[in-house]
Amino acid sequence: MIGSTVLGLDVGGSSVKYRLASAGQADGMPDAIAEGVAPALAEELPATLAELARTVSAGHRLAAVAVAIPGLVDEASGTVIRSSNVPALDGRALGPELSALLGVPVSILNDGRAAAVAEARWGAGAGERDVFTLALGTGIAGSHLVDGVIADGAHGSAGELGHVVVEPGGRLCSCGQRGCLETLLGAPALRRAWNAAGGEGSARELLAAYDEDDPRAVPIVRTAAQHLADAVLTLLALVDPGVVVVGGGLASAPHRLVELAAGYVAEQATFHRVPPIVPAELGRWAGAVGTAAEARALAARVVAA
Amino acid sequence: MIGSTVLGLDVGGSSVKYRLASAGQADGMPDAIAEGVAPALAEELPATLAELARTVSAGHRLAAVAVAIPGLVDEASGTVIRSSNVPALDGRALGPELSALLGVPVSILNDGRAAAVAEARWGAGAGERDVFTLALGTGIAGSHLVDGVIADGAHGSAGELGHVVVEPGGRLCSCGQRGCLETLLGAPALRRAWNAAGGEGSARELLAAYDEDDPRAVPIVRTAAQHLADAVLTLLALVDPGVVVVGGGLASAPHRLVELAAGYVAEQATFHRVPPIVPAELGRWAGAVGTAAEARALAARVVAA
Repeated sequence: MIGSTVLGLDVGGSSVKYRLASAGQADGMPDAIAEGVAPALAEELPATLAELARTVSAGHRLAAVAVAIPGLVDEASGTVIRSSNVPALDGRALGPELSALLGVPVSILNDGRAAAVAEARWGAGAGERDVFTLALGTGIAGSHLVDGVIADGAHGSAGELGHVVVEPGGRLCSCGQRGCLETLLGAPALRRAWNAAGGEGSARELLAAYDEDDPRAVPIVRTAAQHLADAVLTLLALVDPGVVVVGGGLASAPHRLVELAAGYVAEQATFHRVPPIVPAELGRWAGAVGTAAEARALAARVVAA
Repeated sequence: MIGSTVLGLDVGGSSVKYRLASAGQADGMPDAIAEGVAPALAEELPATLAELARTVSAGHRLAAVAVAIPGLVDEASGTVIRSSNVPALDGRALGPELSALLGVPVSILNDGRAAAVAEARWGAGAGERDVFTLALGTGIAGSHLVDGVIADGAHGSAGELGHVVVEPGGRLCSCGQRGCLETLLGAPALRRAWNAAGGEGSARELLAAYDEDDPRAVPIVRTAAQHLADAVLTLLALVDPGVVVVGGGLASAPHRLVELAAGYVAEQATFHRVPPIVPAELGRWAGAVGTAAEARALAARVVAA
């Protein structure tokens, strides 16, 4: 396998990030032989993804490919069950189709899981056995990782910190419950509170205004950070992670929301063992790194089989 | 090791339960060669425990002993750090002391953990990889087990369902937080509500009155079951167990509190994957069974070493 390469493709609604790495290297972060962003793909996705894979790996011997998708996938069959951002993929057996086009094995995985694995192993969770990653954005996704592997429970649905109820009887959540963390800290909830206070723009503008001590922004961000702290205290009681890594669109630029929440957790913890609560380190590349790692593992499995 | 026996001693405030089992048998539930309850031990605990061990195992070759303690123990050194029910043990190196008296290796473990392991492996969790056990009593203890082993987090403190906040800003908990499940569902909280409604006796009398449709008991038990359901929904979101096993003093006799809570969880779940929520099966023997299993594992380690 020395000399061979593997490719991770992180497919998003507006672009595809890729990382080409050596298939032969050991357990560390898959170093980029090539890395970049391609424009979003429209129709005939398997064909355009195959074309991208060929272009990126030109001149290299490709051993395996992994593709991260924003949505629900069936990893065993390589099928995309439902993808809200890339609806053209819904129901497609993307793994087998792409594998037939490229002539190499192809894995399909969820993009959030790929990013969580990368952050836990080689990002802000590096060196810690027991990591909880949190992605703050429109929704709030969580993953609990032990020894770099996602501990996803009996039915694959553990880690849903966004759907911990922090305000009983509160606003209706998209999940059907009331008062989930997501109804208070998701980007739409923050935008709503910000606009109601006279602020312009989205949750990002709110966080930027908070960084400038805008008096309209301060109470909103403090309240949001307190809700996050409440949910994290519940997480510490039930899961007791060694580190909590906070990433996602909302956390990537203005880190003060996370700092504020970490401060509240430290103040309000009682019996809890408070771990470091830190920002993610790999940023928007986490998904591509984790996907390249999955492609590397796939190549190793194929060689071993 | 064939022909040898192991002994589990489950030490409580008012009695010691014991189970003598074969050291040589495989992974199944340690069958009782002898089992029973001895009166509580007072002074000179290591000496009286050693005496009990000798009496129970008379005529058998003893290979190892494990002792379960109601309190905080340091398993590595065999020391009891703090035991509220058996204060005579506080700070004693019970494992080494007992080992010196008996001439066999001795393990010390927490009684709740021993019971959780037994329920998960051979009680109501048998056959399920991913089990959450809950003990309802004065306090509320939880353990998450994967493949029969407690997944206790980065600092050994995962599973604290009793300290999930279900009523923000509520009553002050012994842990220092407000509105923990334990402040609403622990035996003292139920007794307080029952006595305030004119009921006599403790939480057990409340649950018995509920079973007879006493109109003073019904709303109290329904409210308590709803709080338990709220905490279990949070557990499902974060941990996603394959089965929830509810035991402990409060759940052992009148099961209707658990049935009621399971009904609320089923009604109110949204995205959650709802596992069976079932009563514990081993009852008050769970601790002795789990402790005998620990003694058997200790004997196997000693042989292998």
